[in-house]
Amino acid sequence: MTSANTAILQIICPDQAGLVAKIADFIHQHQGNIVDLGQHTDPVSKTFLMRIEWELKSFKLKKSDLKKYLKTWEKQYQMDIKLFFRSQKLKLGILVSKYPHCLEDLLMRQSLGELSVKIPVIISNHPDSSKVAKYYGIPYQQVSVEEKNKVQAEAKILKILKKHQVDFVVLARYMQILSQDFIAHYPNQIINIHHSFLPAFKGGKPYHQAYSRGVKIIGATSHYVTAELDNGPIIEQRVARVSHRHGVEDLIRLGRDQERLALAEAVRLHSEHRILAYENKTVVFE
Amino acid sequence: MTSANTAILQIICPDQAGLVAKIADFIHQHQGNIVDLGQHTDPVSKTFLMRIEWELKSFKLKKSDLKKYLKTWEKQYQMDIKLFFRSQKLKLGILVSKYPHCLEDLLMRQSLGELSVKIPVIISNHPDSSKVAKYYGIPYQQVSVEEKNKVQAEAKILKILKKHQVDFVVLARYMQILSQDFIAHYPNQIINIHHSFLPAFKGGKPYHQAYSRGVKIIGATSHYVTAELDNGPIIEQRVARVSHRHGVEDLIRLGRDQERLALAEAVRLHSEHRILAYENKTVVFE
Amino acid sequence: MTSANTAILQIICPDQAGLVAKIADFIHQHQGNIVDLGQHTDPVSKTFLMRIEWELKSFKLKKSDLKKYLKTWEKQYQMDIKLFFRSQKLKLGILVSKYPHCLEDLLMRQSLGELSVKIPVIISNHPDSSKVAKYYGIPYQQVSVEEKNKVQAEAKILKILKKHQVDFVVLARYMQILSQDFIAHYPNQIINIHHSFLPAFKGGKPYHQAYSRGVKIIGATSHYVTAELDNGPIIEQRVARVSHRHGVEDLIRLGRDQERLALAEAVRLHSEHRILAYENKTVVFE
Amino acid sequence: MTSANTAILQIICPDQAGLVAKIADFIHQHQGNIVDLGQHTDPVSKTFLMRIEWELKSFKLKKSDLKKYLKTWEKQYQMDIKLFFRSQKLKLGILVSKYPHCLEDLLMRQSLGELSVKIPVIISNHPDSSKVAKYYGIPYQQVSVEEKNKVQAEAKILKILKKHQVDFVVLARYMQILSQDFIAHYPNQIINIHHSFLPAFKGGKPYHQAYSRGVKIIGATSHYVTAELDNGPIIEQRVARVSHRHGVEDLIRLGRDQERLALAEAVRLHSEHRILAYENKTVVFE
Repeated sequence: MTSANTAILQIICPDQAGLVAKIADFIHQHQGNIVDLGQHTDPVSKTFLMRIEWELKSFKLKKSDLKKYLKTWEKQYQMDIKLFFRSQKLKLGILVSKYPHCLEDLLMRQSLGELSVKIPVIISNHPDSSKVAKYYGIPYQQVSVEEKNKVQAEAKILKILKKHQVDFVVLARYMQILSQDFIAHYPNQIINIHHSFLPAFKGGKPYHQAYSRGVKIIGATSHYVTAELDNGPIIEQRVARVSHRHGVEDLIRLGRDQERLALAEAVRLHSEHRILAYENKTVVFE
Repeated sequence: MTSANTAILQIICPDQAGLVAKIADFIHQHQGNIVDLGQHTDPVSKTFLMRIEWELKSFKLKKSDLKKYLKTWEKQYQMDIKLFFRSQKLKLGILVSKYPHCLEDLLMRQSLGELSVKIPVIISNHPDSSKVAKYYGIPYQQVSVEEKNKVQAEAKILKILKKHQVDFVVLARYMQILSQDFIAHYPNQIINIHHSFLPAFKGGKPYHQAYSRGVKIIGATSHYVTAELDNGPIIEQRVARVSHRHGVEDLIRLGRDQERLALAEAVRLHSEHRILAYENKTVVFE
Repeated sequence: MTSANTAILQIICPDQAGLVAKIADFIHQHQGNIVDLGQHTDPVSKTFLMRIEWELKSFKLKKSDLKKYLKTWEKQYQMDIKLFFRSQKLKLGILVSKYPHCLEDLLMRQSLGELSVKIPVIISNHPDSSKVAKYYGIPYQQVSVEEKNKVQAEAKILKILKKHQVDFVVLARYMQILSQDFIAHYPNQIINIHHSFLPAFKGGKPYHQAYSRGVKIIGATSHYVTAELDNGPIIEQRVARVSHRHGVEDLIRLGRDQERLALAEAVRLHSEHRILAYENKTVVFE
Repeated sequence: MTSANTAILQIICPDQAGLVAKIADFIHQHQGNIVDLGQHTDPVSKTFLMRIEWELKSFKLKKSDLKKYLKTWEKQYQMDIKLFFRSQKLKLGILVSKYPHCLEDLLMRQSLGELSVKIPVIISNHPDSSKVAKYYGIPYQQVSVEEKNKVQAEAKILKILKKHQVDFVVLARYMQILSQDFIAHYPNQIINIHHSFLPAFKGGKPYHQAYSRGVKIIGATSHYVTAELDNGPIIEQRVARVSHRHGVEDLIRLGRDQERLALAEAVRLHSEHRILAYENKTVVFE
């Protein structure tokens, strides 16, 4: 429940006494009305993490001056600060391969107003999803990827993303492994959906792994993509009960729902700037 | 999570700009280090609700002076303020009838250190649980209740609770309906466990009701007791899947686990002062 | 996991000794290989319920003869028997009003092969969903309903359903209450999705009811439609945790997922003939 | 659900046509009234698995003759057959180390009649739980285990279990790894509770592993003990949501409930002969 015309600060820094007061007071001094404040101190690493959102209506500080202040804080408190404005919807670029269920789910949710993002482009290494892209009126770019042209393909994809000024990327069951170079362009801004309850069943064919292990619960995990495969900061996980009666096909079917939910929730949280990533973990201020 | 030597403020008042800053700053001014801050503004009733916890180690304000300040706030901002200290564990009085599972669960958890409460007395209208009370070394007082002596029985119970300086009461499957007069002595300080997913199946024999309705999920609800039966502010709810294969006995068995979990969580949250009740609802700062 | 070329029997009758043996043996006598057998005896009403599925490949009995046998059973054992063939997909007619999420979800699942049904027609009292119907290549019939023309509207809808030989009907957030006459045409063959955890919050605006009651868990319920509103046999229920931070809009958003899941599961179970309805309850052989 | 005076058959064999009919008919031929029948055919390994329960009241076959028949079946159909009688409660031996919560939970449930087992003995390598054992009137044997005396200790434990004619063993947070020789005495009759969502976080300190990985859901897994550590057939799994706010201590606290539930359910299922283990998996006929 937050009004549209607000500013949001994400702050990560070494813990110090008085930070909450300092920040809240600063916003209040300039007639900013705080509508949401989430704060957490990691007891192990003594890291201070905060998300604060306030109304701009009555806020007396010009954006440029605000940014100046934040610069001084960054030095003074060794803060890692991110500033966002609700009015500026993030631009989401979706990468997809053959399985369309996550893509279709995201498009459906956005059309229902569940996700406050713009989707300027969908990129795929297959033609399959061009029809649904067209239905939703979103440009669809096919970039086929083979072993031999991986580098060029990534360069092409990167160019398309930059051209559409994409803020963050979702791998909606995109079946190509991205290079470190590629990932470096979007640190903690590439969200992947892995079709298992990580860290169980990393890598390929997780549902087959789950079936042969005979687990009683399957799951899906959305996480930020890092250099290490399936090992980035976990954003959201969903699970479903299964039994001996469920074959691999059933696990895949039941898993699809968990994939949809875990990915859609991650996109929602990211687009509302509710996720702070640090030490290969996430702090989610819901 | 939170160190033992802390103070906690629960604040409810009409929303006004700058409250978070004001309160956080006040604590900081007196060298209090905030370890946990939860805040919510009800968008409908424009009610401001806050829970703030800070370390007393370095805090420069004497308790008496702190209380003076809070008094002035109460007037100035029409605040409803409650002040607690972690070091002062709440005293819990448990009322129980014949079913022992919730009582035994609470005693087990407290002995494991899961619940930061003292349990000075257990009161029952039956002798059944005296053995387990003895095992845990807790005084057990039997107060039998019949239609004709209800008023005297409640008076007796009240006297026992006062004598043991009980801060809050748990009805661990206590099968007597308490009078308004009794409840008035412990506003939002009597926690009941109802063995259904409220508001469904109020009143008696909820599992039988659930069975005959053929629901696919059953539940349990912990709530504060108010004058209206089974209609007080809901604290926690738990559910379990059932099928046609589950008879009433099975629902009762499965329900017991949900009752234990929903009640134990409510006691934990209350004892850590994480629940703010208003407008027949709860705001829970986990 | 059942092969496509199978027959399925649904049997409901007063319990008698030897029914399982009788039926299994009958199928075996005629070289039918049983691939799935679900059986339940209601201990209260002493009702015998069974779902048995067997391969037709090697089955030696002609359909006509099989049906003759079943006729004799119906008399001999007072059996209510239904016979289905996997190869004959049920025809599903969908009724929808303005909210498209359940409709779109069903269409998406069917296109993914999750639901073994044909969808010959979509009927709505609004034009809104014609576009998505067109996208999936399904005839879309608009039948506007006002107070004064309710009877004619239902007659029109019925005519369309009959014309398309619809086997069962789904109310995918269809906001008109159907008459008893209409319902009588499809006994236990009209599936509704109610956006609450029934029996809680029957009738209108359940999410608003849930919000004002302050529940900690919301839900959705799919059930067969009977004369009594929101009181038919429950097929599936799904729930989601909520907190004070969730406004009505959030409950509606979170609820949509539960509605989709509860309805899609009901359609899947019904289309695979896994639901036996009796005494205003369902027995689901998963 | 099922009456007390019943017989139960567990059957595992290569799939063949007509098995269900054959077995059901055999029981019916001798006036046995089937009260519960669960059947599954593994589509991959073509394995037939069945659990059938029937009333002995009217059953005309002497136990000795019944066993003779089963012997012939075992040859004829390469069946692995187990025969049980509800009236003969299984004897459960519990091994525990320092953490008492699973032990106490099992004892509480048995005293409530939730578990139809006898518990003739509790064995521990620590004195801690002797008090609770005494409270429930169960012999408590302390067998301390050090590196140097592991073999003798296991021999001693085995002797105690045999002396009390224990049918199956539960490791209620027993922190010693059992030798292959020991396990061989109770194939698929030793149930362990692992405090993670297997196969994630095998081995030691799973909650610490979960915390540092930053998972959003934790779990517990009950499984049969095999030679390979934490890799036996999974019986039941339970999960709980966690967030960044939960420290290791909180994960341990929340995990305890999942451990209790996953272990108690496994004991219930095993004691009712509902679990068939094969190919390092379980088929659970609930």
